[in-house]
Amino acid sequence: MPEPLTSVLIANRGEIALRVIRACKELGIRSILAHSEADADSLPVKLADQAVCIGPAQVAMSYRNSHAVISAALAFKADAIHPGYGFLSENADFAAQCEAEGIGFVGPASHIIRSMGDKIQAKVIARQAGVPTVPGSLGAISEYAEALTVAGEVGYPMLIKAAAGGGGRGMRVVETAETLERDLSEIMSEAETAFGDPSVYIERYLTDIRHIEIQVISDGTTVLHIGERDCTAQRRNQKLIEESPSPVLTPELRQGLADAAVALCREVGYTNAGTVEFVFDNVERKYYFIEMNTRIQVEHPVSEMVSGIDLIKLQLEIAGGKQLTMSQEDVELRGHAIECRINAEDPDRGFAPHPGTIEHFRAPGGFGVRLDTHIEAGYTIPPYYDSMIGKLICWGKDRDEAIARSLRALEELDVGGIITTAGLQQQILDSPTFRSGEFNTAFVAKFLADRSS
Amino acid sequence: MPEPLTSVLIANRGEIALRVIRACKELGIRSILAHSEADADSLPVKLADQAVCIGPAQVAMSYRNSHAVISAALAFKADAIHPGYGFLSENADFAAQCEAEGIGFVGPASHIIRSMGDKIQAKVIARQAGVPTVPGSLGAISEYAEALTVAGEVGYPMLIKAAAGGGGRGMRVVETAETLERDLSEIMSEAETAFGDPSVYIERYLTDIRHIEIQVISDGTTVLHIGERDCTAQRRNQKLIEESPSPVLTPELRQGLADAAVALCREVGYTNAGTVEFVFDNVERKYYFIEMNTRIQVEHPVSEMVSGIDLIKLQLEIAGGKQLTMSQEDVELRGHAIECRINAEDPDRGFAPHPGTIEHFRAPGGFGVRLDTHIEAGYTIPPYYDSMIGKLICWGKDRDEAIARSLRALEELDVGGIITTAGLQQQILDSPTFRSGEFNTAFVAKFLADRSS
Repeated sequence: MPEPLTSVLIANRGEIALRVIRACKELGIRSILAHSEADADSLPVKLADQAVCIGPAQVAMSYRNSHAVISAALAFKADAIHPGYGFLSENADFAAQCEAEGIGFVGPASHIIRSMGDKIQAKVIARQAGVPTVPGSLGAISEYAEALTVAGEVGYPMLIKAAAGGGGRGMRVVETAETLERDLSEIMSEAETAFGDPSVYIERYLTDIRHIEIQVISDGTTVLHIGERDCTAQRRNQKLIEESPSPVLTPELRQGLADAAVALCREVGYTNAGTVEFVFDNVERKYYFIEMNTRIQVEHPVSEMVSGIDLIKLQLEIAGGKQLTMSQEDVELRGHAIECRINAEDPDRGFAPHPGTIEHFRAPGGFGVRLDTHIEAGYTIPPYYDSMIGKLICWGKDRDEAIARSLRALEELDVGGIITTAGLQQQILDSPTFRSGEFNTAFVAKFLADRSS
Repeated sequence: MPEPLTSVLIANRGEIALRVIRACKELGIRSILAHSEADADSLPVKLADQAVCIGPAQVAMSYRNSHAVISAALAFKADAIHPGYGFLSENADFAAQCEAEGIGFVGPASHIIRSMGDKIQAKVIARQAGVPTVPGSLGAISEYAEALTVAGEVGYPMLIKAAAGGGGRGMRVVETAETLERDLSEIMSEAETAFGDPSVYIERYLTDIRHIEIQVISDGTTVLHIGERDCTAQRRNQKLIEESPSPVLTPELRQGLADAAVALCREVGYTNAGTVEFVFDNVERKYYFIEMNTRIQVEHPVSEMVSGIDLIKLQLEIAGGKQLTMSQEDVELRGHAIECRINAEDPDRGFAPHPGTIEHFRAPGGFGVRLDTHIEAGYTIPPYYDSMIGKLICWGKDRDEAIARSLRALEELDVGGIITTAGLQQQILDSPTFRSGEFNTAFVAKFLADRSS
């Protein structure tokens, strides 16, 4: 039986580092922040109980440097490491190193990270658990005959994806059967050239979709879901605005998604917090599993605001061996929450990062307004990292109030000296399309195109 | 049938002015802030849609100057005036002037303010409504024989209070029957000298008490209660820390208090937000009505945080003639909220006000933390007004989490250049007595005495 954590090393930076520090303080856990040279003067360093510089600004030499992180954890006698999101958070090798060193890892076991990190394996597990996946080939395809068989089941348009590709690279839409043979051979040779691996897989090509994900938390015995987050307002696969509940789900669909997420967790024996991601086909009103994120997500506060549940504290408690004391019936979702990711980017210049010094800063406040940020007046945003400077999460009794409050809070927010996405988010939230709740993942791109024309 | 408000003049300052501005923005109501010369550079002035200077710093010439306020409301064509708390908020004559001018008053009708403002009349109404009041004389007493009769019912120790006194002046505790005649004649002649009115009344002297109040909201037809607030942590009748729910109430007592508050509102035909205040006798586990505040209170956010209900928006909607769309069953209280009133005062020097310039300012943030404040870096606290610079309200799933979160947030709060009560509040929240929930209105005084010894 593990002991409750008494100390945690945080291997991250920015707002999520501060988020974990706050949870540690409230739980009476000593927080040790492992930071890069570039972050030495940051607010999380000031607020952590202890701080240790683990390397230079470059992430490969600091935040992604598993040896440096583990050495620091050992040196500071940390019971466990919280990896936040990004960086080492989904690195199965790192989790395995923690296991080998006897340091707790605030997340699932390394073998689960590994299974879920392999997209094909994750899809196989999902199907085993009875969770719907996007129709398509289960494994890699290397011959036209195979592709033809799969195409018969999947239908057109369909998508050929390089197995070794990712992030939008190595993909092609096949519109009709006539071009399949040619498209297949072209994408395979492209994949061979680009990734050294010609294998591809095939999926139904869904265009009118939403991105909906289920927050789960498990102690290894009890698996709870904390409702969904709708992350359809994206720009190039980067989430801009997230909300809970989704404006389009019926109670039946919501329950189906939640049951699917829980079934997947049970199938793999999942432990700690995780997110099961789905695409939701607006046309057929069906959902399909796409992947599982085996870590806390940027947008977790949305779920916290509607559930009242502190997910980071649960992560820490579960990592310390504590069993969940609540049941699914105790998870009551109330009202509506919307998160805007505030990025130091210039929407009028292709979202170019806009690092610089924050000359003055005023945080919005009042009822239902939460700002998770590491910035303060005088802070210089380093150019080495993600451009997110904070997350504004607003709660309302319903979606309309959450939108009104978000708009009010965005108006109050004052970050002097740099350019941010806040103004764009005001425009999006205030648009008839966003207000209607009826849109898909192409909405933000279309909004931006209409805005600049 | 009145129309929804389209514009509201706010006749107040500081955090409550900002609170009302925020509610107006979220409702799409034009906000006009009436301010004194001393507040011309304040944050509420910057954030209001419009601002108008109504007089010099002295409150008699600005915030308490009903003519100046009404002139400004007429000049800016405000549909209604929100008085906040303090200043003109419980001035029946001012509310009557608004009625005469055809300007809405965000609060109950003037005759209700008048009835409830008269302590004896309020007690009579409470008894009519079947609400328990502190045992004692109902009206003024001017003869020993009368006093003796009342004393027979009330018992010793009892309290003689000058009818014209208040705020702790003109009061005497009578310990036994032997001294009643002498005490009565002395306090009557003191009252004659001090207030020009020798009449007194008599009440049971309760020593081991808590202060518990019920938040009510009514549209004139539906009267809802939004749970209780426990304001026992006071210093010289000034509330320092408030919380909801009360740590000592049983469900039966809670229901009894709520029913009593609703009965009182029904008795007087109460409209808008109000607070029914009770003392709770720790010894006999009984509650007694003491007074009703016919306005929004400083500590209203505590109720908002546990209920999810925006009380200021409801005030504005009701003043615009809207009926409540929820019923008592829709009022669901969740978790626990604690408010610390942060005052610019020096606890080590008898709570002397400590105005000055705020050199730097960092607001606490994160999950469950709400800071309602009008201060910002560079702001100079004027010496003319109340020394409260903000309210920190923290929500938790239970009382322990609310305390832990409050302590974490108080630690993060950084107000440079002035002295505040925040450090004292940390000590109080962290004390075994506060944590136990078992204390009375004498707790803070005792805590301060122990602390300085």
